Amino acid sequence: MITLESFVSGRWQEGAGEPSILVDPSTEEPLARTSTEGLDFGAAMRWARERGGPALRAMTLAERAALLGAMSKTLRDHRDELLDLAMRNGGNTTGDAKFDVDGATGTLGGYAHLGQSLGERRVLPDGEPEALSRGGGWVGRHLLVPKPGVAVLVNAFNFPAWGFGEKAACALLAGMPVIVKPATSTALVTWRMIRILDEAGILPEGAVQLVAGPSGDLLDHLDAQDVLSFTGSADTGLKLRSAPRVLERNVTVNVEADSLNSAVLAPGTAAGSETYGLFLKDVIREMTQKAGQKCTAVRRIFVPEAELERVAADLVERLEAVVVGNPADPEVQMGPLTTAGQLRDARAGIEALAAAGRVLTGGPEPLTGRAAPEGKGYFVRPTLVRADDPRAAAVVHEREVFGPVATIMPYGGSAEEAAELVALGGGSLVASVYGDDAAWLAEVLEELAGWNGRIYIGSTGVAGAALGSGMVLPMLLHGGPGRAGNGAELAGLAGLRLYQRRAAVQGDPALLERLFGVGAED
Amino acid sequence: MITLESFVSGRWQEGAGEPSILVDPSTEEPLARTSTEGLDFGAAMRWARERGGPALRAMTLAERAALLGAMSKTLRDHRDELLDLAMRNGGNTTGDAKFDVDGATGTLGGYAHLGQSLGERRVLPDGEPEALSRGGGWVGRHLLVPKPGVAVLVNAFNFPAWGFGEKAACALLAGMPVIVKPATSTALVTWRMIRILDEAGILPEGAVQLVAGPSGDLLDHLDAQDVLSFTGSADTGLKLRSAPRVLERNVTVNVEADSLNSAVLAPGTAAGSETYGLFLKDVIREMTQKAGQKCTAVRRIFVPEAELERVAADLVERLEAVVVGNPADPEVQMGPLTTAGQLRDARAGIEALAAAGRVLTGGPEPLTGRAAPEGKGYFVRPTLVRADDPRAAAVVHEREVFGPVATIMPYGGSAEEAAELVALGGGSLVASVYGDDAAWLAEVLEELAGWNGRIYIGSTGVAGAALGSGMVLPMLLHGGPGRAGNGAELAGLAGLRLYQRRAAVQGDPALLERLFGVGAED
Repeated sequence: MITLESFVSGRWQEGAGEPSILVDPSTEEPLARTSTEGLDFGAAMRWARERGGPALRAMTLAERAALLGAMSKTLRDHRDELLDLAMRNGGNTTGDAKFDVDGATGTLGGYAHLGQSLGERRVLPDGEPEALSRGGGWVGRHLLVPKPGVAVLVNAFNFPAWGFGEKAACALLAGMPVIVKPATSTALVTWRMIRILDEAGILPEGAVQLVAGPSGDLLDHLDAQDVLSFTGSADTGLKLRSAPRVLERNVTVNVEADSLNSAVLAPGTAAGSETYGLFLKDVIREMTQKAGQKCTAVRRIFVPEAELERVAADLVERLEAVVVGNPADPEVQMGPLTTAGQLRDARAGIEALAAAGRVLTGGPEPLTGRAAPEGKGYFVRPTLVRADDPRAAAVVHEREVFGPVATIMPYGGSAEEAAELVALGGGSLVASVYGDDAAWLAEVLEELAGWNGRIYIGSTGVAGAALGSGMVLPMLLHGGPGRAGNGAELAGLAGLRLYQRRAAVQGDPALLERLFGVGAED
Repeated sequence: MITLESFVSGRWQEGAGEPSILVDPSTEEPLARTSTEGLDFGAAMRWARERGGPALRAMTLAERAALLGAMSKTLRDHRDELLDLAMRNGGNTTGDAKFDVDGATGTLGGYAHLGQSLGERRVLPDGEPEALSRGGGWVGRHLLVPKPGVAVLVNAFNFPAWGFGEKAACALLAGMPVIVKPATSTALVTWRMIRILDEAGILPEGAVQLVAGPSGDLLDHLDAQDVLSFTGSADTGLKLRSAPRVLERNVTVNVEADSLNSAVLAPGTAAGSETYGLFLKDVIREMTQKAGQKCTAVRRIFVPEAELERVAADLVERLEAVVVGNPADPEVQMGPLTTAGQLRDARAGIEALAAAGRVLTGGPEPLTGRAAPEGKGYFVRPTLVRADDPRAAAVVHEREVFGPVATIMPYGGSAEEAAELVALGGGSLVASVYGDDAAWLAEVLEELAGWNGRIYIGSTGVAGAALGSGMVLPMLLHGGPGRAGNGAELAGLAGLRLYQRRAAVQGDPALLERLFGVGAED
């Protein structure tokens, strides 16, 4: 069994006490153990402040971009090993594992590319100079510099690779040292990534640290210029935001939490059309990829009333064809949930949804997965619930069942009603809309934009090119209002803003021009 | 005596119970009374949600800009009346009153101008389209729409006009209805402004409401898409951020709080130079304007050790020449503090600073102002404290004494040390730096940018044009890290971001082009 050490204060350190055990969720066999008890997290924070921060701030943006490029390449060189660990510890299919691991290296690589264009400068001008006096003898301009603190990255169990990659890419390029704390149950992949990066000798001292297990008193050492970037449940998000130290020091907290994402079929989408085909393909993938354990998975499906029967039947047919089991078997299309606790929650969630409608396929009953030992593994059936009165089914809009589970509901067909029903989710990461009527789409788009971080429009024009609503891309925003946490990650350069201070500078135009050139190539 | 009513749910309503009394701080004579007891703030929030929000969201950006323009013009038409109220209720000199009232109309006018350029559209594209697939058949773009909630604007007593103007300009242009709650002690000016705007009949129903006194249970009605925009003390800021409802609903909170702003004199600034003259003029104004009751006032002055005696003497000479009294007398250059409580706090603060150094001029002793009744009025002496060991004088960097009070301290002359001492303030709204050595300025600028929202560079080139470090301009950021609240206001279009949702849209490029044209003149 592998023992995971944490990488803090420049050393790989094992915690004391009773370890947590990481298992293969298809077989429940133990894979690794970890403890963080007794580790000095105050020292780790100081290590980041005193070593990592100064080292990164002394680097130009192009140098930090080169660091991300080297991280991406080094991890790609170990791709097979990481995919294997993701499959074993995460219950991922090969496709699921690639989604996570390639997502990490792709995001690091994407930001390396973006950062390269920012040049050999440490201070980034933001916007153009503004005249502040008549005649222009006094001007102002904004600039961006790294926050002089530490970025603590607390990630969810479902993306141990990508979660680290996307947060670290933005923080490191901005110039902040990071301490990453993956969810304990799937920490194996993150642990291996940091080990690989450390062994490659490419990380500036103190720039990247790892807490491979419970975070202990880590958050008690946060200060005003630190950033706490969290992905996980709304409950934990609330706890972190409410922590006395976080409030007292006014620590910046970014939360990506529960999200009851919607897929909406526009009226008049013909059964044989490319757009309808895209809808079916997307919804099935966004329900079953990673066994539905994606914050961007489809949880609510809105279909014009007259088409509900047909659409439901089409989805049921496809869901029932999904082979569930141990991803070690190449025939398997969907793996287990990641932990026993997740399985418990998902089953209870399915029961709650079923009480507000009826189960068309799947359900909460236990399931032995293909190629899994009898009675072992955290498998759950792809489940579609039907609720005929969306306004009466509060639970459908409020409870994120984190598995291959969605609810299909009718609506009258108007853009206004579709948007109103989507908004019952209280704010989501993504809504997908399928149709080809530009006027209808324009109307729904304006309404959805207030309640969803991203809107994916599936139409004839993109049927061959689009990668689905669940895919989070480095150049577009990841984050949604309300229940989704009110966070903002990625979106290209905007993704650095969480880790930067913006400042206005006022002065003589000639002087400002010289000052803004500081650290630049010329 | 004037009775202030609140403007909620479309009606001017008087509260019940014991009123608060607003006074003239030069004479302590009562001017007005107000109560908000028994007003239905839940209904006011619904009024904003159900009337104001839809009305503003239906308007194009250019139409909202025209609203701001009309508000600015209407208030300018009543300038003399507003200046008179500001002088009487705020203890303002004519110059102080203009700073506040013209600041309000100027900011509303500035955003009217900016908004006009955004055109007849409701959805604002943000950035350019990004190719998401090879060949460009699938693209993404960001857009900005109003948050579908209510902006609650809680303002400080020192800027009853500007505080409303700058927050409302951004919220209304973004498309959010506002409920403004001025500090009770100086609510007279804000109350009159909203009355003038209501009487002019230019406000869309539900777009602007006023709570002319204590906020009661107003904040218990906040929800996830609402914004709480607060200016005031760090203590109150912490209370608002920690309110269970705010945490539970993850309400967006912007805080502008205490700030121990610094003025730094670079080494080698000759005594007779224009730059040194600007330094003296600025520091005196930034200490005494509005009797030092500005969040951007200079609190800490860092001077090269060898020049400390001379600089201190020059400042003392100028501070002792300031005529303090009732601004009704045109000879008076500085009025009283605004309330008895502020006077108490300022005196206690001066005593605390004095304990960490020595008082060069001024002090906590009572003072009868010129043209004020004997023993009446909340006057305080312009006070300069000297502390010879800045690192040992923690109170100087931590306690914001909200009056005409600053501490002068020596430093060795290096940019690094200057930045380090400024950072002891734990994050400030503004730092001003006076000098002409571009290399020195470049070094200090990079360090200061992480700890200050704005950096004002006083040099020969701007001596005739610059308006001082205390002036907050609509096109530049207002907000600082850490103790200053970690907020961000103004900065041109960026000032709308607090009140907007950003969303990414993905789809077919031709379709997106059509969708983004919605509502635009094209």
